[in-house]
This record gives sequence, C-alpha cells and structure tokens, in this order.
Amino acid sequence: MPWSNSRNSELLERARRVIPGGMYGHESTALLPSDFPQFFSRASGTRLWDVDGNEYIDYLSAYGPNLFGYGNVDIEAAARRQAELGDTMTGPSYLMVELAEAMVSMVSHADWAMFCKNGSDATSMAMTIARAYSKRRKILVATGAYHGSQPWCTPNRTGIVDDERKQIITYEYNNLESLEAAVRSAEGDVAGIFATPFKHEVFADQLIPSEDFAKAVRKICDNLDAPLIVDDVRAGFRLARDCSWSILGVEPDISCWGKAIANGHPISAMMGSQRFYAAARSIFATGSFWFSAVPMAAGLETLRLIRETGYLESTVELGNRLRAGLEEQAVSFGFSLRQTGPVQMPQILFHEDPDMRLGYAWVASALKHGVYFHPYHNMFLNAAMTAADIDQTLKASERAFAELKAERTRIPANENPLVLARLKIAR
Amino acid sequence: MPWSNSRNSELLERARRVIPGGMYGHESTALLPSDFPQFFSRASGTRLWDVDGNEYIDYLSAYGPNLFGYGNVDIEAAARRQAELGDTMTGPSYLMVELAEAMVSMVSHADWAMFCKNGSDATSMAMTIARAYSKRRKILVATGAYHGSQPWCTPNRTGIVDDERKQIITYEYNNLESLEAAVRSAEGDVAGIFATPFKHEVFADQLIPSEDFAKAVRKICDNLDAPLIVDDVRAGFRLARDCSWSILGVEPDISCWGKAIANGHPISAMMGSQRFYAAARSIFATGSFWFSAVPMAAGLETLRLIRETGYLESTVELGNRLRAGLEEQAVSFGFSLRQTGPVQMPQILFHEDPDMRLGYAWVASALKHGVYFHPYHNMFLNAAMTAADIDQTLKASERAFAELKAERTRIPANENPLVLARLKIAR
Repeated sequence: MPWSNSRNSELLERARRVIPGGMYGHESTALLPSDFPQFFSRASGTRLWDVDGNEYIDYLSAYGPNLFGYGNVDIEAAARRQAELGDTMTGPSYLMVELAEAMVSMVSHADWAMFCKNGSDATSMAMTIARAYSKRRKILVATGAYHGSQPWCTPNRTGIVDDERKQIITYEYNNLESLEAAVRSAEGDVAGIFATPFKHEVFADQLIPSEDFAKAVRKICDNLDAPLIVDDVRAGFRLARDCSWSILGVEPDISCWGKAIANGHPISAMMGSQRFYAAARSIFATGSFWFSAVPMAAGLETLRLIRETGYLESTVELGNRLRAGLEEQAVSFGFSLRQTGPVQMPQILFHEDPDMRLGYAWVASALKHGVYFHPYHNMFLNAAMTAADIDQTLKASERAFAELKAERTRIPANENPLVLARLKIAR
Repeated sequence: MPWSNSRNSELLERARRVIPGGMYGHESTALLPSDFPQFFSRASGTRLWDVDGNEYIDYLSAYGPNLFGYGNVDIEAAARRQAELGDTMTGPSYLMVELAEAMVSMVSHADWAMFCKNGSDATSMAMTIARAYSKRRKILVATGAYHGSQPWCTPNRTGIVDDERKQIITYEYNNLESLEAAVRSAEGDVAGIFATPFKHEVFADQLIPSEDFAKAVRKICDNLDAPLIVDDVRAGFRLARDCSWSILGVEPDISCWGKAIANGHPISAMMGSQRFYAAARSIFATGSFWFSAVPMAAGLETLRLIRETGYLESTVELGNRLRAGLEEQAVSFGFSLRQTGPVQMPQILFHEDPDMRLGYAWVASALKHGVYFHPYHNMFLNAAMTAADIDQTLKASERAFAELKAERTRIPANENPLVLARLKIAR
C-alpha cells in the first residue's frame, strides 16, 4: 500500500474548527514537516499506525511513556485485572501503598513517594515543598530546561504575568560559575535548585552533565540547606534503574517522575528523602484521578519488569547499533550528523543545516519508508525493540539519505515561522 | 460479617512510612471520623467495598467522577475496545476530534475544546487564556471557592509565596456589591472572573446563585471585555446537560470541566467561545497523558449516555426522595438538619452542632450500617442509583439517627485540630 495521508488531512481540517490551532502542546504537528501525521489509529509493541493505515517503527514512544513496548502483555494484564475491580474510586486501593514501597525500594535517595498525574504536577509540588522546607522563595532552573507547562515553567510566556516568574532564577546547565552567580543573585533566598538528568532541549544538541558539575550542585544545596531537585520526568528509568543522577554518584533530595513509570498509563510521582517528609506532609496537593488504581497496578508491573529484565542494557546496545549505523550511512552519503544525548534517548541533527531543511527532509523521507523519527525533539527507544527493528530502520534511513543526496540542492528553505523562531531561541 | 477495619489500619501504618502523612489531598481521611476507611478494594455500580470487605452504598461517587455507576457496562466496553488499539500513543487518535465535536455540540456557549488531565489544568489554562486575551492581570475568584491545587488557587498557603497570589482578588459569592468592589480594586486590570456553578465549600452550607447575580456577572464581564469563566469541574453534567449556569440563562465565555465527563477515566477539559479561540491557540499547554485515547473513548460514550438517557431527571428524583426521607427521620428523632445544595450534590450538616460532633457521629454510624456519607464535603448521587438504594440508605440512616439519639449526651467533643481549624475558616 503506498503511503498516503488523506484521512489525516481531513481530520486536521475538522480539528481546526473545534480545537484551538487544530492541536496544542508537544503533540501538535505545527512545527513538524508538513507530511507528518497527527492522528493515529493503533499502536503495538514497537509499531504505530496512523489514521491512513501507514505503519511506522516509532522512535517517539509516545514522547516517553512507552518503555516496554505499546500494549506490553504483562502490564496490560495487570491493568485489566485491576480495571475489573475498580479504577477511580472514593479512595485509593492498597496498590498505592505497594507502589510507594516499590518506588522507595528502587530509588536510593527516596524515603517516600507522592503520586499525581502530570509531570508538571510533580515539579510544581517539588517547588512548593522546597519553599515549605526552606521558608525561602527563589527557585533556580537551567536556562531553556523544560519543567512542565504550568505558569512558573511554561516555555511560552503568552498569558503569563511577570509575578508568576518573579522568583525563578536561571543558570547555564553544566556551568558551575553560572550556577554560583545565580545563587549569589538570590541573596540568601534560595529555596531549591532544579536540574534535569541531562540537557534535553528541543532544536539543540543534548548535553551530558559532568560528574564535577553534579557533585558541585549537590554541595551547594548542602551548604544552603535547600533541596536539589532532579526532574526525571522525561528520562526516569531510561538511564538507570534508579534516579538518573545516580550514574554520576549524586543523590538528589527530591526527584520528579512521570511518563514511563506505568508504561503509558497516566501517573506521575515525586519522591524525597526523610528530611523533606514533614514539608511534603504540610502542603496541599490533589487531583480527581490521582489515586486511581489501574495506573498503579500498571506501575507495579512496570517496576517489576525494570527490576527483573535486561531492558536497560538491551536498549543501550540497540541504541549504539542505531547510532553507529546512521553515522556510517551519513558519511557514505556525504552528510555529517550531530548525534547527541544518551543512545537510548537520541537527538539527531545535521551539521551545516542552519534552517534544518536537511533534517526536516530526511525525517520526512524516513517517514515514508516506515520510520517515525523526529527532527528536533529527543527520541526514545523502547525495550520491545529488537536488532531486527534497528536493521529495518537502517534500511529506511539509507533510502532517506539516498533521497536526501539526490535532492540536496533542490530542497526549499525552511519557511515555517514557528520553526525559525524556535531555532533563533535554541542558538 | 460484622464491620471491621483491621486491614485498613495495617495499610495506614504502612502508608505513613512511605507516603507523607499516610495520604494527602481530598482523599486523605485525616479530617474524617477515625473509623472511616482510606483504602478500597472494589467498586461496582452504586457500591464500594473497603479493604476489610465492608460494603457501602457510596454517596461520594469517587468525589464526583462516577456519574453513571462504577464500571458502567457501555462505557467500560468502549474503553476496552480502544485499549486494544492503543491508549497513550505518539499522538492522539481521531477520537480527540470526535470528543471535541461532541462537547461543542452539547455545551451552548462553546465553539472549541481543549483536553487535559486535572481540573487544575483546565482552570490554570483558563486563567492564562484570559490574560492572553485581555492583556490584563487580575483574576477575580470567590472567597473560599476551590479552583484546584496549583499555587495560584490551593486552599493551603504552606510553601506558597506571595507573588504566586498577588494578582488574585476575591469577592463574596452571590454578592454583587462585593464583586463590584473587587472590580474597582483591580483598577482597570481585570483579566477574567471565575465563578463556580454554586457555592460548594467544605464544612459549610451550599448556596445556589441568584439569577440576578449570575446575569450581573455576565454584564460586568461584557463591559470589561474580560471572560466569565465558569468552573464546572465538580458539577459539570450533574446539574444540566449543558454548562451549569445555563439553568440561570447565563452563558460563560470559558468553562472548565473534569471529574465526570468520562465516568472516572482521567480527562478534564476547557471550552470556550469563538472570541477566545485565538487566545487559546496562543498559549502553551501540554502533558504526557493528555492525548491518550482510552479516556476519550470513555468520554464519548459518557456523553452519549448524558444525551440519550434520563439520568439527570432520575438523579434529581432520587435526591429529592433521599432529602425528604432524611428530613422526616431527623425531625422524628429530635434533630434538625441543614440540607443544602442541589439534591443530586447534597450537603448534610446538623443545626446546633458547632464542633460537628453530631454530624461526625451520625456518618460514622451510617458507615457501619453500609452507607458511605461524608460529614463536611458535598456528596454526589450517581445515575446507577435506584429507589431501592435510597430505601436501603434510609434504613441505615434511621438506625444511625436512633444511635445518635441514644448516645447524644455522651458523644465526646470533636478534638481533631485540623477539623477545628477548618471549622474556624468556614465560619
């Protein structure tokens, strides 16, 4: 069946009438090459089908939630068993206690857990707990770091008033001097410091933090008696079976989790050490569906798979295989790639591609050969992937490189104003 | 089987070690009579079972999400069918468009819809859209009204800094003079006005707004060219098949929805009129699970039942039957009840009960006879309830009144410091 997108186009038209802009947030296709489908009909394992029936090997993994493959049999069986009993009830099931116990047993720094729905819920609660503990106000975050879409952290300032951002101070990721300057500028009023596991910004190379930087942040927080908060919403359990900064030998005070902890079932979490128990207890936080039992059942089974399978090592191995294969292909077709980030969360950008026309054309071509890559957002391998998936991906990417080489001089400039604006910010 | 709560007590002990305070938010039992179970094992139709196996007719309906009975056959079938295809994928399914179309067709004032997860997501987005539209800052909310648990609206100020609340001005619900004074104090900087369908505060009588008040709010918003935002998260589709203020002949510009729109599946929504489409399009809002397909499938089926069944009329009829029966019993046992709010969302408080010892003892007694009432939070009837459920409830409540009468002079004072603090606020 030849690739087509007529049903998607029809849905986009209908969507524009009843959904502002036709879509919003990170799943909008407004910044993607124009052929990218926005609506999907099915997902299974490593595969995703759009509403026109086109099949893709999906390297977005639902932007992170899919850790063990879509519809993982064990996790879905656990979810279904609980759904028969009850999901959103007048209180939680006993699974809430078991899930908190399981998380605490796996995350070294943590003695307690709280569950919520969005990543933004977890980061906003962490901010409030930091202030409740320290009785101070300023929150330090890295420039450009994404900590959610609440007013204090949304990357888009439209509709945001200055007061909502007044107590936020930025520092440059992986830059100790800049962090120290931010601390000084807070004049003794630092409530807490946020850090992401690695720098994973859109439209930009990813950056792994140095051990020295991470250890220095830890020390600064100790000196200030303010919490170090690692926002592991995006990367949690993809880099380690523990909080992501455990790889660097650093334990935060509070960590934020989400996306993958229940393999796509909606739940996020915040965890902390005993020192912050009283502060965590003192704040108010709630949501209608936060205590639903089905995502907790799915979470417990996901955590079991994290503990008992080689999912992490296998994903790293396949990520290396993909990166090496793409590098070899790029060179052989006369292109130069910037492949950054951990191999299981790869970012692929092109050198000498200031308006990203090469990158956009390459992913659009790969799409038509059955691979869903992303031109500016980090991707996520999942544990259902096999060597055969990587090999099939590399066959598609090779065809995409060949097409890119043939078309190179004829690719039109990227004229999407939203993309050009974002590229300006990223630089 | 006699009522017992030993397994619940064990779980509470375990919970305190790994969850701050053992629980948080509106589902914590810290403010409830000490016997109230916190953990549940099962729910079906109108019934809820706690972890000790005690069965209750549940008048909390999961604090609102349960509109058509737990595990409604049609809704769960739709959810299961979609779960087989995919839930959280790299983008939404076509169901997102269909759900937006269905909501728009049912809610008179609305031309577009956005979906999210928490009620707080919807109210925070509405606030941001109001500011994006008006380019002004101040948000007017009624004193004591609950609009969620984000920093700008949480009822608990612990960990909240003044700047997060600086642009919020309060007015007295149903009091036009007070609202006008709030508008004046904003000095031309009103971005939007929030109102709840009725005053549904904890520990207090509920209050229905007057038509005059609602129409005056509408007029003020028109004069200011600032949106009237009705927060229908708690009451949506419980008072009307349209936005709740449609009963008063008033259409808001933006409405916030949640809880019941997918009968317990996690999804919330915000809707608006065409005038606010561009502003809604201009903000950034997203969350990892906002575009999941299963809650949208459940939502579509819930909306169908709302349109095609007599659920609303039946719930009102049963609510009246319950209210009349309780009133008669109270009088015959020498008590005087304050039954306020719409009958389908009843609040039951006792006259001459300043520390609520009578109310607490009565609900604790009803609990042991198989009815889960709430002593200080509005309750929610659901459409699975029948006259037989109400009659069984009235048998239990009669035994509870009899016990209350027998024990009346021996009931100890309410010494829960959290409760006493809340009672102080409510007065």
